[in-house]
Amino acid sequence: MTADGVSGGPTDDDASASDDGPADDPQAAIDAQSERRRAALDDRIVEHSAGDQQDGVPFVGAGPGNPRLLTVAGMELLEEADLVVHAGSLVNSELLDEYCDHADLVNSVGKDLEELIPLMRDAYEDGRNVVRLHSGDPAIYGAALEQMDALEHEGVPTYLVPGVTSAFAASATLRTQLTLNEVSNHVAFTRPQGKTLTPEEDHISEFVEMGDVTTCIYLGTHAVRETMDRLLADGHDPETPVAVIYHASWPDEDVLVGSIGDIADRVEEAGYRASALVVIGEAVTGAGYERSFLYGDWATRGSTESSD
Amino acid sequence: MTADGVSGGPTDDDASASDDGPADDPQAAIDAQSERRRAALDDRIVEHSAGDQQDGVPFVGAGPGNPRLLTVAGMELLEEADLVVHAGSLVNSELLDEYCDHADLVNSVGKDLEELIPLMRDAYEDGRNVVRLHSGDPAIYGAALEQMDALEHEGVPTYLVPGVTSAFAASATLRTQLTLNEVSNHVAFTRPQGKTLTPEEDHISEFVEMGDVTTCIYLGTHAVRETMDRLLADGHDPETPVAVIYHASWPDEDVLVGSIGDIADRVEEAGYRASALVVIGEAVTGAGYERSFLYGDWATRGSTESSD
Repeated sequence: MTADGVSGGPTDDDASASDDGPADDPQAAIDAQSERRRAALDDRIVEHSAGDQQDGVPFVGAGPGNPRLLTVAGMELLEEADLVVHAGSLVNSELLDEYCDHADLVNSVGKDLEELIPLMRDAYEDGRNVVRLHSGDPAIYGAALEQMDALEHEGVPTYLVPGVTSAFAASATLRTQLTLNEVSNHVAFTRPQGKTLTPEEDHISEFVEMGDVTTCIYLGTHAVRETMDRLLADGHDPETPVAVIYHASWPDEDVLVGSIGDIADRVEEAGYRASALVVIGEAVTGAGYERSFLYGDWATRGSTESSD
Repeated sequence: MTADGVSGGPTDDDASASDDGPADDPQAAIDAQSERRRAALDDRIVEHSAGDQQDGVPFVGAGPGNPRLLTVAGMELLEEADLVVHAGSLVNSELLDEYCDHADLVNSVGKDLEELIPLMRDAYEDGRNVVRLHSGDPAIYGAALEQMDALEHEGVPTYLVPGVTSAFAASATLRTQLTLNEVSNHVAFTRPQGKTLTPEEDHISEFVEMGDVTTCIYLGTHAVRETMDRLLADGHDPETPVAVIYHASWPDEDVLVGSIGDIADRVEEAGYRASALVVIGEAVTGAGYERSFLYGDWATRGSTESSD
């Protein structure tokens, strides 16, 4: 990328891209891209709308698991792909079977950026259609951006294709909404403290304390017991509804419904240590809400949202 | 629905369904369904996985706007539909043109439950394929459940098909993630105080105060000035990044990027009063994060999520 191409993105000058940075140091590449981002908006933010066809390697949200919950854009990109780098066991293999059986498949699990970036770069530079497939939506606990920035630093253009996150599959399975009039006004996507998050960065108890937030815990299946114990220690009502949805939308989807007081027993009995979403709040039941009278009012946003 | 069909859903006995409740009083129907929900889990929660084909009227998330960001399931349901009840100007007309030009279309705007429920019920009982199309994902500020409960009370089975919410289109447009290692650990979907929400139910300032939450404000375009003024009054840094994405993924998508201190001026200059998403937090820039080292560790959830 040329020095004066700060806001233009890598399509300005792909050939010289790898000359100006340490290709073998992804964090340095990420930091260089951070500087570009701070200096000016990438032109592509304004030139393209989400869902548009763009040049480069798409980072596609595979959705929650069921192949039918992939987007049309994702399906088309997979059907045209020569190489699909996918998130291993996080992506339902049925989806790969259905849309990618003609493509070379690479499992990203166990590979670091130092291995993945040259692999995708070389394939792209050889003229192959490369798709990077993440589970759910790439914006939620996805780690897509570090690969995008490292590829952009190498002169390979990239873009995001959004997907359905597992919390939306979970709420569909539960036959409820995450927001519900007079029950839940807000939704939090969060994860519990552990190696990655300090106790101070764990906001689960604060979200539950608000009383009108549906709290969706990602990456916390292994920590259900500790999480519920902390909520009880903080004085939250043990009767607060909690659902645990294992592999939402997969063929082996399973639903456990209980409360802050008893859900840990249920999860341990079922034996789940990973791959489940934990949903806390009254919205889990889908009960007790009031009709919204939306259709003549809120839905006509142009004229009446402003009166809200 | 028969009295002993509490957990069985309306497929048990459709014919008698409308005998046991006030069909002309949707809130009473909703309350009756709430009682059923509290008494026992609906069998369909266990029998079906999200994305499965089911009997009845699907409540489909249309996604953020671009027809390519509809799910494959949503596309197939629309292509087979005889009647599509859609959310008017909240759904991109391109999507209706592309997938539903063979179907009867009914705009729900300006119609209340008393009008919509008999319309969908009668069409379903006449053997027509009815699809209810909501914008984004129906679980997020969607008001799908009240229609589902009212229909179920009338003996019409229903189910949810999740979709891509506008916040995910917005993050794709911004070329960023809503969670970002060492920058943002959590995401809040929220709306500001107004006619629907009291000041006590407005948690925007609390989410921003947490420091590592990306706050996505729905239904708040008209209130950007008041929202930012409240954040400034609460002492939040005026330099905190804010993006406003108008009609994310639509052909007329527009992006405004600024800060708590100046975004209201930009929104007023652009003239937006509705249909935009407001995103607050450092993740807006996509800058300053650290690589996650996910691929050899977190991604292998089965064995190592528990070590997080």
